[in-house]
Amino acid sequence: MVASASEADGVFERLKATCPEDWAAYTGHAFVRNLGDGTLAEPCFRWYLAQDYLFLIHFARAYALAAFKSDTLEDIRQATATLDALINGEMQLHLKYCAGWGLTERDMAALPEAEQNLAYTRYVLERGLSGDLLDLLVALAPCVLGYGEIGRALLADPTTRLEDNPYLDWIEVYGGGEYQEVAAAAQAQLERVARARLGPDPTASPRWPGLTATFGSATRLEVGFWDMGLAPPAGFGDA
Amino acid sequence: MVASASEADGVFERLKATCPEDWAAYTGHAFVRNLGDGTLAEPCFRWYLAQDYLFLIHFARAYALAAFKSDTLEDIRQATATLDALINGEMQLHLKYCAGWGLTERDMAALPEAEQNLAYTRYVLERGLSGDLLDLLVALAPCVLGYGEIGRALLADPTTRLEDNPYLDWIEVYGGGEYQEVAAAAQAQLERVARARLGPDPTASPRWPGLTATFGSATRLEVGFWDMGLAPPAGFGDA
Amino acid sequence: MVASASEADGVFERLKATCPEDWAAYTGHAFVRNLGDGTLAEPCFRWYLAQDYLFLIHFARAYALAAFKSDTLEDIRQATATLDALINGEMQLHLKYCAGWGLTERDMAALPEAEQNLAYTRYVLERGLSGDLLDLLVALAPCVLGYGEIGRALLADPTTRLEDNPYLDWIEVYGGGEYQEVAAAAQAQLERVARARLGPDPTASPRWPGLTATFGSATRLEVGFWDMGLAPPAGFGDA
Amino acid sequence: MVASASEADGVFERLKATCPEDWAAYTGHAFVRNLGDGTLAEPCFRWYLAQDYLFLIHFARAYALAAFKSDTLEDIRQATATLDALINGEMQLHLKYCAGWGLTERDMAALPEAEQNLAYTRYVLERGLSGDLLDLLVALAPCVLGYGEIGRALLADPTTRLEDNPYLDWIEVYGGGEYQEVAAAAQAQLERVARARLGPDPTASPRWPGLTATFGSATRLEVGFWDMGLAPPAGFGDA
Repeated sequence: MVASASEADGVFERLKATCPEDWAAYTGHAFVRNLGDGTLAEPCFRWYLAQDYLFLIHFARAYALAAFKSDTLEDIRQATATLDALINGEMQLHLKYCAGWGLTERDMAALPEAEQNLAYTRYVLERGLSGDLLDLLVALAPCVLGYGEIGRALLADPTTRLEDNPYLDWIEVYGGGEYQEVAAAAQAQLERVARARLGPDPTASPRWPGLTATFGSATRLEVGFWDMGLAPPAGFGDA
Repeated sequence: MVASASEADGVFERLKATCPEDWAAYTGHAFVRNLGDGTLAEPCFRWYLAQDYLFLIHFARAYALAAFKSDTLEDIRQATATLDALINGEMQLHLKYCAGWGLTERDMAALPEAEQNLAYTRYVLERGLSGDLLDLLVALAPCVLGYGEIGRALLADPTTRLEDNPYLDWIEVYGGGEYQEVAAAAQAQLERVARARLGPDPTASPRWPGLTATFGSATRLEVGFWDMGLAPPAGFGDA
Repeated sequence: MVASASEADGVFERLKATCPEDWAAYTGHAFVRNLGDGTLAEPCFRWYLAQDYLFLIHFARAYALAAFKSDTLEDIRQATATLDALINGEMQLHLKYCAGWGLTERDMAALPEAEQNLAYTRYVLERGLSGDLLDLLVALAPCVLGYGEIGRALLADPTTRLEDNPYLDWIEVYGGGEYQEVAAAAQAQLERVARARLGPDPTASPRWPGLTATFGSATRLEVGFWDMGLAPPAGFGDA
Repeated sequence: MVASASEADGVFERLKATCPEDWAAYTGHAFVRNLGDGTLAEPCFRWYLAQDYLFLIHFARAYALAAFKSDTLEDIRQATATLDALINGEMQLHLKYCAGWGLTERDMAALPEAEQNLAYTRYVLERGLSGDLLDLLVALAPCVLGYGEIGRALLADPTTRLEDNPYLDWIEVYGGGEYQEVAAAAQAQLERVARARLGPDPTASPRWPGLTATFGSATRLEVGFWDMGLAPPAGFGDA
């Protein structure tokens, strides 16, 4: 939620500063605000969460790809830790909500992917395959770090409704300590890999424009994902 | 444009028969009909063709990927021949039209990708990377073979307007002998690789449902691409 | 250590039965026998273990690749579990031995890879990238399942020296329950993926000859790895 | 064949200057000298050429991979041009020699790969898949540019035997204008991509040590390939 960055800032802050409007559109999206005040229509949340479950399968694959693309055991371990947090931590949130709606994991896996979902996940995976580890981590950053920022901001915001908010579990997962640690470790890896590949001033590298283009595209694909959440298909989530 | 397939049919016919409505929606799309009768609004065609130029860059990469994923020199040569036809043949059509509008190749390469374009190309590339050569060829089939079918049908259709149709070059390229040969060779490779990996009755393989899912997804992404063509962004193609 | 297989056998047994001499050369190699009777020269073991540490980095990357190439969450989870067992379990054996020799993890990571090591790891990774998940699991099988078989056989063999054998830790790790469970789960995944992609009779699939060629190559590369262990470079492992 | 490089030199010269002994061992190998004076034993040449045919299949796949990994149409076209030169040009030399020995293309494709061959090709492919386009082009450089250098040097060397040298075709292919153009274009791409990713002083990039390690490994794998050529298996190449 920052629109400018100074030289002292890390790579993540400087990437955000290259697309401040897109970043604000993502982190301050109506979907997010309505999670915060508890006014989001339930079919929207159901549709979002079901798609996000499918999304996480491909995001887990993307962190597996990051482990494959690593040159050092440190990077393999970090990518594996994030992968493990996704499939053994974050996804439990989805399964818990879905169980509450009478949906099994098998039901979830059988849903068709929305186009915005497919576009985002395949974009990230393909970027990681055609580029190097840094291209992949930059493509992953808007999701893994943005959700940390959104969760933290919602918890810190005095207007967020904490009582009787059906989405409180969501807010507490992404704003909570466990996810914040996952995000901090992912951010530390991004900073480290960026410096190891671009040198002490990443913005001076000839790769910087390409990396900011990737970051901007992934951020806009996040906006599209929230838009999708606000427009569940007719009949979805009824009964 | 076929809704049923018998055992004697090849893999391509049998794939189409698993999603006849999607296939008809693609090959008989309003965009196609309006190319045929020459009534397509020029901004739609410009927007489509500019996006298709970006699309072909990624499709060329997908055929390069097919060459990489080949086990035999025969498959490397066939994929390279298709790649060569794309970048040294088909793209010339785009450059010719675009030159007529005062657009250089550099202008074209600088356009932002529409989301439907990004979704389709990255889906195909990722399918090829996570699967094997057959998964990739099946994901590529709706485009390379479908365009051949569309071009052939338009040329054979007595209602197609051949005089003073601004899109005649497009129709003649895809319906013409050179492209038909490219498509026939691509189809022959699909049939050959399918049998080499699935055996004499591909539909009996446990992989068949997954392959038909890929084919159906790619076909629907083609429909989305035509839809995109009918909805150019405001101001595009004016002047 | 089986030279024939019947229809009732699983895919792993049937793969072994296609290259019985190579499999025997691998699992009954002089290096293995000398681990068992404790007569292996220490420089050989040091050289082997240092190379095996580098090997495991690339094998961890290969299991990460398997997670990426998975179509189902079940396969992602299984590949991640094996990956985790490699980097957080098996590698501890190497670090423990190496610490006993005064070698740090950094020292280990800085050693140059022997050519046999490079050949084997890159072969497996490339097979996984150009093929599908099954090609990759078949390329991985001789290592992950072969070590389980070797460890189990050494522990069961009455001629194995259990007292004062400097290599007892190695034998107990690979013959022990924890590793045997890792191997059993990896084997179950191989059987499941093979049937899901080849049908109930994998040997009748047109892919079978290619898969047996991969399995045979990987087995011979294991033989080369033991050969390498018996021939440490001059001066290696001296105090 | 250069052991030092100044700042004015291109990336290729500066890469060579980081491993002058390996580069000299490769370009001045006994196999090369014996091609030049025509004293190479024919079974060695046959064995080398048959393995090199298999090598070129994987090298063609590596250039296809470079086309896939390209961000620009210019790089796709250049990689495709090199790919085309390999499969439609260079390989004709192999087929011509082999036809002279009564070997068909099918015979060649059926030969087992020597381990040095497998190690080299899979190393290059895997480097390209786990890294970016530049990592791949650096891994490819010792082969494509080194053969150009070797061919040119042999043709320029007054001690090279031009009459009654059974290997004259080989020398003339790699020293000849057509191959020299392929090599020059590949070198230009390496220089261009290096500057586009590392900036005006590539050696100052934090990636430089990793790139020189890749170049050094590939050069040593070329030395291993010549060594392999000098040691055909017993009975190979006998009438």
